[in-house]
Amino acid sequence: MQNVNRKIILNSRPVGAPTENNFRLEKTAIPVPEKGQVLLRTLYLSLDPYMRGRMSDAPSYAPPVEVGAEMVGGTVSRVEKSLHPDYQNGDLVLSFNGWQDYALSDGSDLGKIDPRIPKPSLALGVLGMPGFTAYVGLLDIGQPKAGETVVVAAASGAVGSLVGQIAKIKGCTVIGVAGGEKKCRFATEELGFDACIDHYAADFDKQLALACPKGIDVYFESVGGKVFDAVLPLLNTAARIPVCGLIAHYNDTALPEGPDRLGLLARTLLTKRIKMQGFIIFDYYNHRYDEFFSQMSDWVKEGKIKFREDLVDGLENAPQAFIGLLQGKNFGKLVIRVAND
Amino acid sequence: MQNVNRKIILNSRPVGAPTENNFRLEKTAIPVPEKGQVLLRTLYLSLDPYMRGRMSDAPSYAPPVEVGAEMVGGTVSRVEKSLHPDYQNGDLVLSFNGWQDYALSDGSDLGKIDPRIPKPSLALGVLGMPGFTAYVGLLDIGQPKAGETVVVAAASGAVGSLVGQIAKIKGCTVIGVAGGEKKCRFATEELGFDACIDHYAADFDKQLALACPKGIDVYFESVGGKVFDAVLPLLNTAARIPVCGLIAHYNDTALPEGPDRLGLLARTLLTKRIKMQGFIIFDYYNHRYDEFFSQMSDWVKEGKIKFREDLVDGLENAPQAFIGLLQGKNFGKLVIRVAND
Repeated sequence: MQNVNRKIILNSRPVGAPTENNFRLEKTAIPVPEKGQVLLRTLYLSLDPYMRGRMSDAPSYAPPVEVGAEMVGGTVSRVEKSLHPDYQNGDLVLSFNGWQDYALSDGSDLGKIDPRIPKPSLALGVLGMPGFTAYVGLLDIGQPKAGETVVVAAASGAVGSLVGQIAKIKGCTVIGVAGGEKKCRFATEELGFDACIDHYAADFDKQLALACPKGIDVYFESVGGKVFDAVLPLLNTAARIPVCGLIAHYNDTALPEGPDRLGLLARTLLTKRIKMQGFIIFDYYNHRYDEFFSQMSDWVKEGKIKFREDLVDGLENAPQAFIGLLQGKNFGKLVIRVAND
Repeated sequence: MQNVNRKIILNSRPVGAPTENNFRLEKTAIPVPEKGQVLLRTLYLSLDPYMRGRMSDAPSYAPPVEVGAEMVGGTVSRVEKSLHPDYQNGDLVLSFNGWQDYALSDGSDLGKIDPRIPKPSLALGVLGMPGFTAYVGLLDIGQPKAGETVVVAAASGAVGSLVGQIAKIKGCTVIGVAGGEKKCRFATEELGFDACIDHYAADFDKQLALACPKGIDVYFESVGGKVFDAVLPLLNTAARIPVCGLIAHYNDTALPEGPDRLGLLARTLLTKRIKMQGFIIFDYYNHRYDEFFSQMSDWVKEGKIKFREDLVDGLENAPQAFIGLLQGKNFGKLVIRVAND
């Protein structure tokens, strides 16, 4: 056991894209648990696009991280010292340690890692928040029907890769959108998408239209920007758009130049009777968790759902990895291995 | 029985707001029914905002009226001569004669007027398409819960006046938006809305915010434009926005100047987990009709739902009345009395 607790602190709020200067590493004493608490050792830290929102003080669905405080984040941890009756030393738990080596918890924010999980880091990916987001967003909001065309942004990413595979299981035609040939090939060859379009291509919108000859029935949105612009004219009557993220906009510092297309979007929703719905997996969906976990575990076991982790070693590398995530540099679910499990 | 059939023809497509020159009146022979047909006499013609869309050839949810063809529209008609086994002379039917005195039908597009309707023209309003739109849009898409704040655009209009009253029945706080003090007073004093804000007021957005101290849970959209702009920042987490119309935009000839707020809208939907859904009452909702008709009839009978008709005499006055409708000049459900019932 090392004798300091390293933390990544929000050093300043980013203006536009975050830089390494927005973070700093601090070393503090390892906290000491009191009765009713556990000391947690972070093993894996999940890096997710939503964290960009926490770095800003613009109103959002969760309060911002204060400047000078450690970055927040979901983690898989090992109970290092338990003074809590429900936990024993060595237990693996899903926790919210944030970007640091150690944290205390009174147990109220912990979930034991299901022993059925093949490896603990998956509790941050396919069998965790991203998997649950894909499952509920696609099935409950997107409601895909066999034979429909589903378009998935960020097709090789933590959520998109699962959305597309679930849609395939449900009998849909699945068109992915990803950045670069390598990710696109992964989506078609490994994940079984029917096609995947590279959004860096100059004629991206034309390629997408060609890949969707029957239009788009479900667009699973996590990106926004030019991907949404290309999707918008292809949407079919009665299309559904679950919105779980808008990563293309997270670094925006101002609204883009006009014309103002707010009314155009509203009019498209009206004339085509489209449902567009934002959702955050942390609200409303607890009642869907058991089905998700059981079904997704089965699919993983049966080889019907594949996933890819982008494991980066070392807490000190979290800022650079996160900056890359916002640029689409990761390939698969981005996880920092903070300590060996 | 007069000896000609007058028709209002789409003379040319409007650019921006329609003018009287976009219409012309033609006189033709009264058509003669064949076996299996009925000859219908138009008694009441419903004028509705959606008709603006039919005058344009921009893609929409229904094909446009061809230049040189008669304007389309729902009507209450009397069977003048029946050669159809299911109809007798004198029957009152809901039909789609369009803007003309007479029409033929093979019966497939007719519905007998329910004898429970207190007066036939109501089949075009509170007990017809606008009523059904209000009922399904608010209850099925808006899903208001007691104690929530519901904001209703076009509060004195055919749909909005009913939306607000149904929301009051469901225990909501109802804030209307209407054009001018007279309509606002009608909404509060006659319809029982908790407040109604005049969108002509210079500080309209501030007044709306003051009237919604707990934010907005359901916004029933039929207007767009500056009303939506004022609503957007007031929307609560998990708000619902049924969109049945966007009358402020129907005469637009180009997108407004920037900045481009399309991404802002998407981001609001995401961070506040809002559902925004366009709907057209003619699809999907047949299974809800019986409940609507029975419930709304009861409410009308019990005096729980009030309504106001704006009756204009004479088919020849339909163009001017329709032009006024798009300017908000009507006060209540706009109906042309084409002949006496």
